[in-house]
Amino acid sequence: MITVAVDVMGGDFGPEVAIPGLAKSLDRYPELKFQLFGIEDKCLPLLEKFPKLKAASEFHHCEVAVRMDDKPSRALRQGRWRSSMWRSIEAVKNGEADVCVSAGNTGALMAMARFCLRTMANIERPAIAAIWPTVRGESIVLDVGATVGADAQQLIDFSMMGAAMARALFEIDRPSVGLLNIGVEEIKGQEEVKEAGRILRVSELPGMDYRGFVEGDDLGKGTVDVVVTEGFSGNIALKAAEGTARQIGEYLRAAMNRTWLARLGYLLAKSAFDRLREKMDPNKVNGGVFLGMNGIVIKSHGGTDADGFAAAVDVAHDMARNNLISKIEDDLKLFHARLPVTGELVEENQG
Amino acid sequence: MITVAVDVMGGDFGPEVAIPGLAKSLDRYPELKFQLFGIEDKCLPLLEKFPKLKAASEFHHCEVAVRMDDKPSRALRQGRWRSSMWRSIEAVKNGEADVCVSAGNTGALMAMARFCLRTMANIERPAIAAIWPTVRGESIVLDVGATVGADAQQLIDFSMMGAAMARALFEIDRPSVGLLNIGVEEIKGQEEVKEAGRILRVSELPGMDYRGFVEGDDLGKGTVDVVVTEGFSGNIALKAAEGTARQIGEYLRAAMNRTWLARLGYLLAKSAFDRLREKMDPNKVNGGVFLGMNGIVIKSHGGTDADGFAAAVDVAHDMARNNLISKIEDDLKLFHARLPVTGELVEENQG
Repeated sequence: MITVAVDVMGGDFGPEVAIPGLAKSLDRYPELKFQLFGIEDKCLPLLEKFPKLKAASEFHHCEVAVRMDDKPSRALRQGRWRSSMWRSIEAVKNGEADVCVSAGNTGALMAMARFCLRTMANIERPAIAAIWPTVRGESIVLDVGATVGADAQQLIDFSMMGAAMARALFEIDRPSVGLLNIGVEEIKGQEEVKEAGRILRVSELPGMDYRGFVEGDDLGKGTVDVVVTEGFSGNIALKAAEGTARQIGEYLRAAMNRTWLARLGYLLAKSAFDRLREKMDPNKVNGGVFLGMNGIVIKSHGGTDADGFAAAVDVAHDMARNNLISKIEDDLKLFHARLPVTGELVEENQG
Repeated sequence: MITVAVDVMGGDFGPEVAIPGLAKSLDRYPELKFQLFGIEDKCLPLLEKFPKLKAASEFHHCEVAVRMDDKPSRALRQGRWRSSMWRSIEAVKNGEADVCVSAGNTGALMAMARFCLRTMANIERPAIAAIWPTVRGESIVLDVGATVGADAQQLIDFSMMGAAMARALFEIDRPSVGLLNIGVEEIKGQEEVKEAGRILRVSELPGMDYRGFVEGDDLGKGTVDVVVTEGFSGNIALKAAEGTARQIGEYLRAAMNRTWLARLGYLLAKSAFDRLREKMDPNKVNGGVFLGMNGIVIKSHGGTDADGFAAAVDVAHDMARNNLISKIEDDLKLFHARLPVTGELVEENQG
């Protein structure tokens, strides 16, 4: 049995999207149970419409809902202990749920998760991992915006967490991992990226296959299963790619509307276009995963629809079923057992 | 009259692509003159096929061609003074040409340009500016990989250079400028980006309309005319966007080949697809512009075709016709006259 705690109030549309989304995910995974947190009179009437979901859920009334534009500090001040966001995270902490899902605002969700769940031993900073659609399938990219900048040790932590997530999500034994870098040779590159690469190469961790540096265009190619970078460039890469997909969608619509022949062609190829739209739809891979804390929190896009929210719940299901947290803990222990003094290894390699 | 110095040997295909490309650009801009640098027996037979181009060109034999995989240090050692790449840059320095175009390797080209042309007074570091296709037209994005990291002053320099380039290329008086940042509120953001924003806001430069921060998805939207960031994230954004465009192209091809109805639809809408392909073609906006040195160097994609090379030459033409270098020099003078002590302004703003 897998229990998912849900902040039903999160996102631009709150329960209007979350509740039908949960019902969709439950259809796919009937073993799911839910702990729902939200404002009673906004949620219960909707829940009545989905009897199967209602039967699988326990509902908890919360007085406060964190707003999409609340600053993290305000959200913490107003919403700690009593908001639907806080209480859904707390359910994971208390062992009442295996994983938490919210479409609430990222800053507030991260602040509350850090405060409530705390970072894991040996992990300095959490990361947000995105599931990135590629021509080969999907890759994991992290950090896409939890924090700005990362030193070598943090990049190594991200690599281990990302590899553990790939093992849980894609069910492969030894996911390939690459560090995002830029290819212009004349420049020095980020020293932290180079040092992280040196350490990953010599440490030969059993849970990942470190493949060296990758570049921005390797993201869409799916060159590796896990792409690791610091949060500033990761966030910009993610949004640049999403923006490009939307931009091409607009070009395509405009092109198909220009002549009657194009419109006719569009109609004939409509099923193909629908498939394409599905491939390009960011909702299909909805769900940023917060890693590095003592519990998994899945962040759904705020503006998503029921299908997108269901996709985030599906990700939550996969993470919990495959025991992501204990996979990460095992890897961290192993890594630190192998590398008691990181500095030594680096020197050895430079010598 | 505008004279373009051309490294005919640069790129994956050298003169095979450069010479037909030059001929195409000359058809569009008959006032162009060329100083061509290359290996005689590889270039002259091809040049014979384009009599108009030959008449507009002066050819200079060079013994050395920098290879696409040469490291910058090696390229400088082997190619200084005598390679086609060096000599085309030198032609700008000596006033024999207004601008230089090469499809040679970026690292070597930047190293040679810095060595030969030197950075402008008051500019610490050069930048590479890309012309980015947007749903509204085109924007300028810099730095896309000349150097890693940038402090506030360097970001301000990039803003001024980018704005001057936008005035030269798009012929608008007061281009809008944004600093690339990430939107997660909880985190601090890059301090350098914030400080650059503060200074740009209070200095109210006449040559640009500073609009604050933009995010990765604003790139494709064309929210501002000029997007400024440091080279690591800029390079990753550029390649992530290019990769996404290629990825969607592959999805589209696969979708249109799945059923006979889709194939028929494709045939009927073929002209629309051709328009789309043109919009998505990175060659159409080929040409990274090296800014911040005493002379303009245009870097064409190494793997481009004749159309792409011609697009790079078109950019060179526009930059030279609109006197980009003197625009940048004027702006720098004005900025430094307004802000004799940068520190003061920052404090004033913080107080």
